[in-house]
Amino acid sequence: MSEAPEILLVEDNPHDEELTLHALKQHKLANRIHVVRDGAEALDYIFGDGKHAGREQKVHPRLVLLDLKLPKVDGLEVLRRMKEDPETRRIPVVMLTSSREERDVIASYDSGVNSYITKPVDFEQFTEAVKQLGLYWLLLNEPPV
Amino acid sequence: MSEAPEILLVEDNPHDEELTLHALKQHKLANRIHVVRDGAEALDYIFGDGKHAGREQKVHPRLVLLDLKLPKVDGLEVLRRMKEDPETRRIPVVMLTSSREERDVIASYDSGVNSYITKPVDFEQFTEAVKQLGLYWLLLNEPPV
Repeated sequence: MSEAPEILLVEDNPHDEELTLHALKQHKLANRIHVVRDGAEALDYIFGDGKHAGREQKVHPRLVLLDLKLPKVDGLEVLRRMKEDPETRRIPVVMLTSSREERDVIASYDSGVNSYITKPVDFEQFTEAVKQLGLYWLLLNEPPV
Repeated sequence: MSEAPEILLVEDNPHDEELTLHALKQHKLANRIHVVRDGAEALDYIFGDGKHAGREQKVHPRLVLLDLKLPKVDGLEVLRRMKEDPETRRIPVVMLTSSREERDVIASYDSGVNSYITKPVDFEQFTEAVKQLGLYWLLLNEPPV
């Protein structure tokens, strides 16, 4: 892959994945979205390990959309590993999760998350939330590279 | 003050202050906005020192909008002090600045800024940017408290 994706989407729920991709594409917010479905693969992708060895990992996505409850390695651990490493700590990470439990919110902020968004249950509101976050992070926010 | 402001705006340029307040109020995004005009007063306000001694500083704003070039103490130093302290590090901080110099962007991310926005020069675009960031941080983002 010669060009970094605009968004790395880390999501194990096929329904939420579909909704998120649909909203981003509908509003032409991102052409290059890479999807991984568990936390271990997210780490491999970000750090260029495992089956992603050899990927030019210095070419980072503009945004990581990270679910919290994930198979193999959970979202908080992915976040911590990214924010501990000087190579990856600047990449904006937004939690996009069903959990609004205070301990999850607090732990995410304490681990350096850039923003935390609770997935709306309603279909329309979910789509609108993804549209807004796409607009914000891809068009308004100044990326760190 | 018994209730925390929704936004602490740290801005020394009266024109930009006026535009920002106008955009936030026009879209009814924030009723309680506290404005300070230099970095030293921002620190006093956030940490309850100086003329803000006695303020209940545990009641934090939902968002700090921080200019970079500020009198007395610059925005980067305010950011660093906030992000180093466990009491204040979770408060979302958005740089809102005229500078798009790479070193300012990088230094802000390295110091833990949540997001970095370059002030559009055009009046309409400035208003639209403030509206979007207000919507994002006050309505969509889950606050850390």
